[in-house]
Amino acid sequence: MSDETDINTRHRERMKKIKAARDKLMATKTEEKGLIIVHTGNGKGKSSSGFGMIMRAIGHGMPCAVVQFIKGTWLTGEALLLKERFPEECRFVISGEGFTWETQDRERDIAAARAGWEQAKEIIRDPRYKFVLLDEINIALKYGYLDLDEVVDFLLAEKPAMTHVCLTGRHAAPDLIEAADLVTEMTLVKHPFKDGVKAQKGVEF
Amino acid sequence: MSDETDINTRHRERMKKIKAARDKLMATKTEEKGLIIVHTGNGKGKSSSGFGMIMRAIGHGMPCAVVQFIKGTWLTGEALLLKERFPEECRFVISGEGFTWETQDRERDIAAARAGWEQAKEIIRDPRYKFVLLDEINIALKYGYLDLDEVVDFLLAEKPAMTHVCLTGRHAAPDLIEAADLVTEMTLVKHPFKDGVKAQKGVEF
Repeated sequence: MSDETDINTRHRERMKKIKAARDKLMATKTEEKGLIIVHTGNGKGKSSSGFGMIMRAIGHGMPCAVVQFIKGTWLTGEALLLKERFPEECRFVISGEGFTWETQDRERDIAAARAGWEQAKEIIRDPRYKFVLLDEINIALKYGYLDLDEVVDFLLAEKPAMTHVCLTGRHAAPDLIEAADLVTEMTLVKHPFKDGVKAQKGVEF
Repeated sequence: MSDETDINTRHRERMKKIKAARDKLMATKTEEKGLIIVHTGNGKGKSSSGFGMIMRAIGHGMPCAVVQFIKGTWLTGEALLLKERFPEECRFVISGEGFTWETQDRERDIAAARAGWEQAKEIIRDPRYKFVLLDEINIALKYGYLDLDEVVDFLLAEKPAMTHVCLTGRHAAPDLIEAADLVTEMTLVKHPFKDGVKAQKGVEF
């Protein structure tokens, strides 16, 4: 038997074992439920992964919604695409007026965050929406613009069983992580800002 | 001065300082360049963040492309959406035939990965594409289906200056991380699989 044939045969045996183990494992995973999903950490990908899931939901014909806290005034690619191309498939609510250091007006930021949260509650309570993205809500929670207990209690008590809700932003609160089903920390390994590269279309917004 | 007024005033002062520091910092970030972006780690969000950036690129009118390694046979939401709704805006190439433990045929997996890489090179060389997602290519590299040096050398030598290329998948090779501009590790904090919840539409695919 040649070396290459040998490698292929061993590979097939190993993959057969992996597949058997995996099939057995996956057979135990039968439950479907709406998840509380948290994306946090100081790396890239928290919002963009949320928008990637919105894209998946639209692709599967699942009605979805985005409530965008904090980042409101940026002309992002995702906002352009969703508002222009998917007004029926995805409800898009902008509540923030930019990062809080841009407005410098705490009362206006609080009012905007609370108005966004009121709309988020109404959307989440409506079981027609299958996936709801609360983009950058962790920042509004971190600054105390929204009450953490209220948000966590609402998600645990009132989120319909089959609705997925994804909350993004740095500094996710421990109580939110505790309440969540699926939590990912995006960890910064390397970032081009340090070399003088600016935020760019398609990548950061 | 009431407590609340006091809080608001202090907030405004602090935010003014943050904004000044941030504006000064951002003024030094003037360079635009096409980035080599890597999403790795065992957490969620590597592919979905890549697809979120594809959504941003489409939103900004930037022609883009996806070459999907390994995951080929899954009927994913992102594939459905991109192929049906954005055939002009985003070229979509499927090279894999499923995870390698599904096919159990190493030679076929290698042939599929190499065919995908040939198409990826042709796409990346074409400067009309502004954002190219090489989804799950790290798995093909990890298994040795593609040559790491060849992939890294190609990206460094032949990627047009303004093209962004995003490579996803666990186990990103150290040489690829070294060559990249923007690297994020998606770290698993909590996952519902352990509680018997299966992979679900809109979340995992």
